Amino acid sequence: MAADGGEPPTRIMVAVNESSKVGYPRPSISCMEAFEWVLNKIIRSKSNASGFTILLLHVQAPEKGIDDSDSIYASAADIKSPKHKEVLLGLEFLEYFQKQCRDIGLACEAWVKRGDPRKLICSEVKRVQPDLLVVGCSRRGLSFYQKILIKSVSGHCRKNADCPVAVIKSSV
Amino acid sequence: MAADGGEPPTRIMVAVNESSKVGYPRPSISCMEAFEWVLNKIIRSKSNASGFTILLLHVQAPEKGIDDSDSIYASAADIKSPKHKEVLLGLEFLEYFQKQCRDIGLACEAWVKRGDPRKLICSEVKRVQPDLLVVGCSRRGLSFYQKILIKSVSGHCRKNADCPVAVIKSSV
Repeated sequence: MAADGGEPPTRIMVAVNESSKVGYPRPSISCMEAFEWVLNKIIRSKSNASGFTILLLHVQAPEKGIDDSDSIYASAADIKSPKHKEVLLGLEFLEYFQKQCRDIGLACEAWVKRGDPRKLICSEVKRVQPDLLVVGCSRRGLSFYQKILIKSVSGHCRKNADCPVAVIKSSV
Repeated sequence: MAADGGEPPTRIMVAVNESSKVGYPRPSISCMEAFEWVLNKIIRSKSNASGFTILLLHVQAPEKGIDDSDSIYASAADIKSPKHKEVLLGLEFLEYFQKQCRDIGLACEAWVKRGDPRKLICSEVKRVQPDLLVVGCSRRGLSFYQKILIKSVSGHCRKNADCPVAVIKSSV
């Protein structure tokens, strides 16, 4: 088995987005539930955390134009010289998840990309090659158009991401 | 987290099928790789096995007609009075996976159903409600028609199963 052979940790990418109703720094319910699913169903306990690395990807969809060359890591240096306010908000937003990882000794990498979430999540999967991609999917509580948008992100990833994909349907 | 609150084990259903080339008792490469993915990437070590239960579902597609009411559990009583030879072969086939679970102290339930794999995997998910369904998917080494058949099972489950689904693409 993996741990018996000194294999590297299992790398789980979780795509996270801000609440469509409240905005930053509040995460969407669907991505919070997806993240909690990873902690509760896969990691399960602190003693098991050393076998995993969480890769937190937050994609911001700019209102004007698409710039998918932007990629900002959540380091102190990046925060000191953010490209703009939106990216800084994204980095602060990731802290919600990073803190929970730190609290249980779970290794975590987090970064922000700007562009089309559907394309960028799949291209980041190709680049980073996680063992599993986890994305949330809302069922209720969003407007008709929001539902279509969010569903299409999870549906697109499920079809096109080049790794196993677990879509976690939100309870609300 | 789950283990901190005395939560029940994470239940992972793995759909397994026999080799399309060799037949019983040899498993298909794609389902072996899916099963190994669960052991290596999720369970990882013997010490973590107590947090999980594996649910092994083997669906046999009868050549004549569909009887989806058949459901045989891999118990000694069932083996003593098998409904027919095919079911007995299916129960023996499951032993390949059950042995690996026993070897690492991983709880395991295994059963055979007879009927359309696409429908039965989804209906069993609805009945059993696992936390994750894992299915294999072949890419090469099968005939054109076999590829379509196997792909359609994983594709159908990915779309229709009422739980998160990880499709593990075979390396061959």
